[in-house]
Amino acid sequence: VADPIITLTTDFGEDSPYVAAVKGAILTVNPAARILDLSHQIPAQDLHHAAFFLAEAIPFFPPGVIHVVIVDPGVGTERNLISVELGPHRILSPDNGVLTLLLRKWPLERAVRLAEPRYWRETVSATFHGRDILAPVAAHLSLGLDPAQLGPPVSTVVELPIPQPAIDSSGVRGQVVFVDHFGNLITNIPSHLVPSPFTTEVTIQGQQPRWVRTYGEAEPGTLVALFSSGGWLEIAMVQGNAAQSLGCGRGAACQLSVAGQACK
Amino acid sequence: VADPIITLTTDFGEDSPYVAAVKGAILTVNPAARILDLSHQIPAQDLHHAAFFLAEAIPFFPPGVIHVVIVDPGVGTERNLISVELGPHRILSPDNGVLTLLLRKWPLERAVRLAEPRYWRETVSATFHGRDILAPVAAHLSLGLDPAQLGPPVSTVVELPIPQPAIDSSGVRGQVVFVDHFGNLITNIPSHLVPSPFTTEVTIQGQQPRWVRTYGEAEPGTLVALFSSGGWLEIAMVQGNAAQSLGCGRGAACQLSVAGQACK
Amino acid sequence: VADPIITLTTDFGEDSPYVAAVKGAILTVNPAARILDLSHQIPAQDLHHAAFFLAEAIPFFPPGVIHVVIVDPGVGTERNLISVELGPHRILSPDNGVLTLLLRKWPLERAVRLAEPRYWRETVSATFHGRDILAPVAAHLSLGLDPAQLGPPVSTVVELPIPQPAIDSSGVRGQVVFVDHFGNLITNIPSHLVPSPFTTEVTIQGQQPRWVRTYGEAEPGTLVALFSSGGWLEIAMVQGNAAQSLGCGRGAACQLSVAGQACK
Repeated sequence: VADPIITLTTDFGEDSPYVAAVKGAILTVNPAARILDLSHQIPAQDLHHAAFFLAEAIPFFPPGVIHVVIVDPGVGTERNLISVELGPHRILSPDNGVLTLLLRKWPLERAVRLAEPRYWRETVSATFHGRDILAPVAAHLSLGLDPAQLGPPVSTVVELPIPQPAIDSSGVRGQVVFVDHFGNLITNIPSHLVPSPFTTEVTIQGQQPRWVRTYGEAEPGTLVALFSSGGWLEIAMVQGNAAQSLGCGRGAACQLSVAGQACK
Repeated sequence: VADPIITLTTDFGEDSPYVAAVKGAILTVNPAARILDLSHQIPAQDLHHAAFFLAEAIPFFPPGVIHVVIVDPGVGTERNLISVELGPHRILSPDNGVLTLLLRKWPLERAVRLAEPRYWRETVSATFHGRDILAPVAAHLSLGLDPAQLGPPVSTVVELPIPQPAIDSSGVRGQVVFVDHFGNLITNIPSHLVPSPFTTEVTIQGQQPRWVRTYGEAEPGTLVALFSSGGWLEIAMVQGNAAQSLGCGRGAACQLSVAGQACK
Repeated sequence: VADPIITLTTDFGEDSPYVAAVKGAILTVNPAARILDLSHQIPAQDLHHAAFFLAEAIPFFPPGVIHVVIVDPGVGTERNLISVELGPHRILSPDNGVLTLLLRKWPLERAVRLAEPRYWRETVSATFHGRDILAPVAAHLSLGLDPAQLGPPVSTVVELPIPQPAIDSSGVRGQVVFVDHFGNLITNIPSHLVPSPFTTEVTIQGQQPRWVRTYGEAEPGTLVALFSSGGWLEIAMVQGNAAQSLGCGRGAACQLSVAGQACK
């Protein structure tokens, strides 16, 4: 049987020593742990970005992996650190909303608040709980510790306000909720709200992207609409950067609508 | 015997969830696979950059490693996905030219087109074949699957047009083909075309760099010519950035010549 | 017993093939080595950054890990490559000062100069000793090679000049020595020089940050002073970037002082 896997998702960047210190703190407790980087480039303290990232990444992992998430603007304050199960997935994180979108897929299970310092580093700093608490706790779990030993159960966790698409007879108004590395704009409009995509008019910032199934179906530079690999309406520029080209990012300022299925 | 290694080379960046999803998809099929990041910072959709990167990296690996390359502007279109052997190296990639420079070192062997969905994820998206096809196929290979099971053989693959140095009695005209992280300019002029480097005049953008064996042989700020660790004529600025300083990048716009061996 | 771990800390970035080539060179000698990335984003040739990075990262690792550091502006010149022990930690690096701050924690032990080509790649380039010497040497050590076999002992290593805080009756004048990924400014003033922090006035670039224990104790946008997770006076902007906001980086240009404990 393979050694246990601990994944890391942080906003630490790689120029600073924080990722390295977390890895050392894990290996100090379990030298056999296999550490897997998911990202250290979550934008600083961006909980919405982290929540979307996790919802599109964690579901693809097999059971038994321990996922550590360290995006923690409230480090050292009253916010809790938690260990939760969501379906087959176990996650350690601050209780600050990063699980919001995963909670739409699975109910909260076996959630506990980390409260047992015996599983932490001996000295806990005020500003680096990722290294001093989450890392050693993850390593103890990877050695087989029962999560129930980590602290008392919690029944709810913090959730972020997530903008919902507005639906009326004229169609659907939505928002960009994630801008990816290529400048593709992922929206909060799921594919089931656009049952006949190729005959439905999409408008973003006054422009009408052309419907395609995949990027390569239009010429470079074309603004296209398609469904993302996660099942969301996505606006992209073929071999270009839609976010830059439209001057458009996450949030309500970027005007996005999908015409009602009756029109056209 | 050590667990099998699967390497990843992508243009996904690390702010997006794509790298993580690929890693999860691999581990879902083979939880014992050792995943090794080569790069996720290939410039977006830049096949020439990827081809050079692979030619300078893959040859240093031992046999038995499975290399997955996901730089795939044509995802979801007619382009093939392939599994190939080049010397002792096995690579999975889109058939889009990323293997061009490796093919100068080894002939194409045991090349097949991926055509057997039984080795893919159950649902295959139109825009993320890295996660849905390449990742699970790599994991199956790491479990010992015979590549011949993946699909029918192919006898040729796509090659990129690569600029060749022009040689005449006055010398050699070449091009920058790669700009590295330090702003060093790697050219397409191999060392054997410059048999007497220290007595040969190099000109780039009207300037004559000084020949050195290694960077530290000249003062900081000096423009130097040397042979790269891969055996190419390289133009560098000591403890500086030659690309920025010369305003010079990949391609024909950057004027580069090496005087004939007769002239000084 | 788990396979041996080799960590990598470099200034190579990830767009270039250098990290990948180092990994391949390690695995060619020891295919079972577990390679762990600490950072490939050390700013190019920045020895002070690397020295601070290592001092804040290496101490958190367990014994038995082999740390390879490749920040090497003098590659190919007379500078040595060394293998050293510092407390329980083994490090391979150029002898260029990157160990300076670690040497304040542990004395130099079992230090040798790499001089035995039998443990190197067969061909050694002039510009890439990380790939051609450090990588295979690390892999041989991970297979159990006695470091004494690598070359002759050395009794001292290069140390960088590190600015010390100036202490007089009016207080302490210090410097920023590290700017982290969040723009937090880490100084060279240790916590023991500020025994009563909350009643001590700190001044940086003419501004007086507010003392907090951790970031979340002040409103977003507040300039705060606190002790870093490594025990240094740190200046931060809550959910912001202090370096950008103050126009302040590493070095003497950024005016920093802490009032004497008698005042206020």
